[in-house]
Amino acid sequence: MKAIEKLRKSQERLNTSLCVGIDPDFNKTPSIFPKSAKGIEEFSLKIIDATKDFASAYKINFAFFEYFGSKGLEALENIFNNIPDNIFTIADAKRSDIGNSSQFYAKAIFNHFNFDSVTVNPLMGKDSLVSFFEFTDKMIFLLGITSNSGADDFLKLYFNDKHLFEIIIEKSQLWFEQDNLGFVVGATQINEFKTARQLAPNNYFLIPGIGSQGGDFNKLKEYKLNPSIINVSRDILFASSQIDFAEKANKKAQEYFNLFSLF
Amino acid sequence: MKAIEKLRKSQERLNTSLCVGIDPDFNKTPSIFPKSAKGIEEFSLKIIDATKDFASAYKINFAFFEYFGSKGLEALENIFNNIPDNIFTIADAKRSDIGNSSQFYAKAIFNHFNFDSVTVNPLMGKDSLVSFFEFTDKMIFLLGITSNSGADDFLKLYFNDKHLFEIIIEKSQLWFEQDNLGFVVGATQINEFKTARQLAPNNYFLIPGIGSQGGDFNKLKEYKLNPSIINVSRDILFASSQIDFAEKANKKAQEYFNLFSLF
Repeated sequence: MKAIEKLRKSQERLNTSLCVGIDPDFNKTPSIFPKSAKGIEEFSLKIIDATKDFASAYKINFAFFEYFGSKGLEALENIFNNIPDNIFTIADAKRSDIGNSSQFYAKAIFNHFNFDSVTVNPLMGKDSLVSFFEFTDKMIFLLGITSNSGADDFLKLYFNDKHLFEIIIEKSQLWFEQDNLGFVVGATQINEFKTARQLAPNNYFLIPGIGSQGGDFNKLKEYKLNPSIINVSRDILFASSQIDFAEKANKKAQEYFNLFSLF
Repeated sequence: MKAIEKLRKSQERLNTSLCVGIDPDFNKTPSIFPKSAKGIEEFSLKIIDATKDFASAYKINFAFFEYFGSKGLEALENIFNNIPDNIFTIADAKRSDIGNSSQFYAKAIFNHFNFDSVTVNPLMGKDSLVSFFEFTDKMIFLLGITSNSGADDFLKLYFNDKHLFEIIIEKSQLWFEQDNLGFVVGATQINEFKTARQLAPNNYFLIPGIGSQGGDFNKLKEYKLNPSIINVSRDILFASSQIDFAEKANKKAQEYFNLFSLF
């Protein structure tokens, strides 16, 4: 099955576009978990178990695992293998390199792991992206307009009346198929969200920035929100820092699950 | 010792700006090495041993190790620990993320490993970079103008008479200290090299693209080449695919060592 079909099925089955972001910052995990690769693995497994009835997708951010080196990647491997097969998976890796090297990153994500999709940084241009898109069954989310304040520095520069992020969205659609190509569009960027959606009305948007980062879902809804994957990480993962963290994560996930219902 | 001092000492001690790039593509390693994480580890260790008298720096590209997941990172850890202490080290990771996550990438590179420097993708702007620069003893090489053809797609766009890569070089100098801030400037980009050097006359340039990628060293020399680190990967690593690979790598490294002499 193509990744985009798996995504559609997973969202339709649960009637939600909620994606739970696995960002296990060991500074914020409950104190019962050791501050180690094993600790964030155990925490993440409990979170997946507590949220799997509400998550149409899981997005795993590689940074929190790389922190622990090879042991961290081992934890990531174990976590990935414990995600139910019918839930869409996103490797939030934001990789970028020249073709020769990006090929190895692509194979890491799609062959070593078997993620359904990946986030990629498009700065280095088409030939740095092709290796990812050669996996024609997978989905690639290019950074479009990110949720952080630094998005102003380069992504919002104007080039002949178009922002850089608009050019990224336009050019990449000429290069790659719609079914494979999505964009990361931050929920904190309301005006840019509107623009991005006009430029790519039918591509999936991966939307971070709801919750801790302050993005306003109700504002987003004023524009064409779908097709989209709406990610919440910290607000669910760290709903409680106590022994009841899983129960609270479950409740919080259910709230977002309802809020992000498709129909 | 600050990383920049270590770099200066290493280059002065050997009188060369040669950096050997550890890009162990298992498709190209001699057949005596298994196509595994252990295989690329053994190959890389032999290459380091064969080139350490000529290398003022080693640049390790993470893609070739991530390919093998946790076992690959284990190989990277072992290789890193076998680089002589007085040789400058570069984590060629090209990472990028929002502040909360990029902090973990920075700590992976500088705490878990103890690299002297890292390559970073600046697309997401200042707040995505700050976590790296908080390591004030280290050096951060931002992608300036990369050596691949895709550099044309975004990095060479004009914004108000300036290319995006020029804006990256200008803005980042306002944000960060010269001793910590370097730029990746591809040897295949002669005109852009000249421009980049005018904008950042005293920042270290990390220069890939000589050798297999076709960059012409003699053309580069017409401009202000130093301070710079000139990287060669494939041309040294795969100088021979036979049993004499180490001997050939040694010879090839010596050639570049001489070519890139400082004085």
